[in-house]
Amino acid sequence: MILLSSSPMILVNGSSGCWTTMYPGGKLNRGLSVIDSYKLLKEEKELTDEEVFLACTLGWCIEWLQAYFLVLDDIMDNSHTRRGQPCWFRVPKVGMIAVNDGIILRNHIPRILKKHFRGKPYYVDLLDLFNEVEFQTASGQMIDLITTIEGEKDLSKYSLPLHHRIVQYKTAYYSFYIPVACALLMSGESLDNYTEVKNILIEMGIYFQVQDDYLDCFGEPEMIGKIGTDIEDFKCSWLVVKALELCNEEQKKLLFENYGKDDPACVAKVKELYKVIKLEGVFAEYESKSHEKLVNSIEAHPTKAVQAVLKSFLGKIYKRQK
Amino acid sequence: MILLSSSPMILVNGSSGCWTTMYPGGKLNRGLSVIDSYKLLKEEKELTDEEVFLACTLGWCIEWLQAYFLVLDDIMDNSHTRRGQPCWFRVPKVGMIAVNDGIILRNHIPRILKKHFRGKPYYVDLLDLFNEVEFQTASGQMIDLITTIEGEKDLSKYSLPLHHRIVQYKTAYYSFYIPVACALLMSGESLDNYTEVKNILIEMGIYFQVQDDYLDCFGEPEMIGKIGTDIEDFKCSWLVVKALELCNEEQKKLLFENYGKDDPACVAKVKELYKVIKLEGVFAEYESKSHEKLVNSIEAHPTKAVQAVLKSFLGKIYKRQK
Ligand SMILES: [Mg+2]
Ligand SMILES: [Mg+2]
Ligand SMILES: [Mg+2]
Ligand SMILES: [Mg+2]
Ligand SMILES: [Mg+2]
Ligand SMILES: [Mg+2]
Repeated sequence: MILLSSSPMILVNGSSGCWTTMYPGGKLNRGLSVIDSYKLLKEEKELTDEEVFLACTLGWCIEWLQAYFLVLDDIMDNSHTRRGQPCWFRVPKVGMIAVNDGIILRNHIPRILKKHFRGKPYYVDLLDLFNEVEFQTASGQMIDLITTIEGEKDLSKYSLPLHHRIVQYKTAYYSFYIPVACALLMSGESLDNYTEVKNILIEMGIYFQVQDDYLDCFGEPEMIGKIGTDIEDFKCSWLVVKALELCNEEQKKLLFENYGKDDPACVAKVKELYKVIKLEGVFAEYESKSHEKLVNSIEAHPTKAVQAVLKSFLGKIYKRQK
Repeated sequence: MILLSSSPMILVNGSSGCWTTMYPGGKLNRGLSVIDSYKLLKEEKELTDEEVFLACTLGWCIEWLQAYFLVLDDIMDNSHTRRGQPCWFRVPKVGMIAVNDGIILRNHIPRILKKHFRGKPYYVDLLDLFNEVEFQTASGQMIDLITTIEGEKDLSKYSLPLHHRIVQYKTAYYSFYIPVACALLMSGESLDNYTEVKNILIEMGIYFQVQDDYLDCFGEPEMIGKIGTDIEDFKCSWLVVKALELCNEEQKKLLFENYGKDDPACVAKVKELYKVIKLEGVFAEYESKSHEKLVNSIEAHPTKAVQAVLKSFLGKIYKRQK
């Protein structure tokens, strides 16, 4: 058992819900996806207690991975709150110790894997998988962070391919690919035979992030649990990328002058512009086209059980309001 | 190839000396120890080109591990310089992106291991080893950081067992144990059979850190490459721990009043006290006793080749001035 920082509240014992003490209110979607996927891969068969335990354990590992990234992301983004609470590094007496706390959270993953999977034939594949996904996520964070460096901000660099690249790396691998990959490994599959499944999950992750970008501006704060600040933060959001595509010269000038300013008047002008160029409709069209494309890709997959896993994922996020 | 942060100078390509661009002037002792140890384990036999390459590759992995820890440590300690240059997070336009840069450095370790060791029988043991040592180091950092939290500083908590624990975890595993463990794995050994070797290396690591603490106060700044600030920083140094043991009540009062203050007059009073209680002599005695104990433990080991590895390590650090 490990005591994080100075607070006796924050305990990590390798399997309990410590992280829910630091940032309660997480939906645990990523973690729960492992067992959901594994069940579907097993089709009718009842899971043994050991299978349930192992699938949940991998789910928790993914939650630790996310916890680690969120603790560090809040420091780098200089954020104030997360899930309605102060960010961990803003808690008195934590401060920059939060960097090491994030590292400790991360280090529980290989400890948990070693404890429960060391004897499994897929143990080494699990280690490789978590390592690969961590690297991809850190790479995505890097591209994301570089776009918003003070004094280097340049809206003309924002484009759909850049948005796609950031989102693929910083979100899609750890949110969509890894839960399914864990379930496949548990089922005795080799991930080399599932590159198409990986591609579909990455596409789904991108679709999910476009929704996130949309909701940041157009969602109900009560529904999404926060007040979006992507415009103030000069984020490479799907909305601004689309706006740059659709604007005339005059509108583009307005966007350049007002995007990324921490001033409510500037934010209001950007939001007004988004309405004028009908971004809500553009999003609705994107959403139905993406959905159609994803359904087609999924149905092209030869195995019904894998189709079911992918459709279940898609069903959870299609037309989500939060 | 990966671009860290915004500077085109900072390239990581998985095997080159990028890190030497960020913080040049490192001695690479830890990295070089892998090949030195491996040669000694092989006794007379000439190494093949592949063996040299693999041992050097593991050496670089240890250097990346150190690089990662130093980048984050400087942030958490709010340090100003490292090896005579500004700390990475203090470079303009880097700032807190340095957190992610540290993570990227770290993530190169499993990438390098996968690329060059995936087919080796000891691949999974290498992954476990690096994971274990990272966790131990992060745990040591945690204990270290907790002792110096603003408002929680309490000199009466400092003791030899606490010093021992901090040093064992934050320094000894990654500086002394892991290079030898890598060489043993490359030689086909199981680390389970080398717990005594591990214990000796940990003891050596503690001895090394006591020297570091000593040199911070009594070393020549030109020799050690920096001006020590352990007294100002309220560090749980071997010197202050020993002083607390040796002081009378009046001297203890002086120590409590002046330790951990960023004021040259206070620092001078502490240093004066260290002289009055003859800490330099206490250190000299500790040094020769430690050396003797280590030599005895080493000579109790059944294998000459392993003895040679341990003696070579000890020879590198005994009575060092920098
Ligand atoms: Mg953020
Ligand atoms: Mg961020
Ligand atoms: Mg968002
Ligand atoms: Mg430091
Ligand atoms: Mg430190
Ligand atoms: Mg020192």
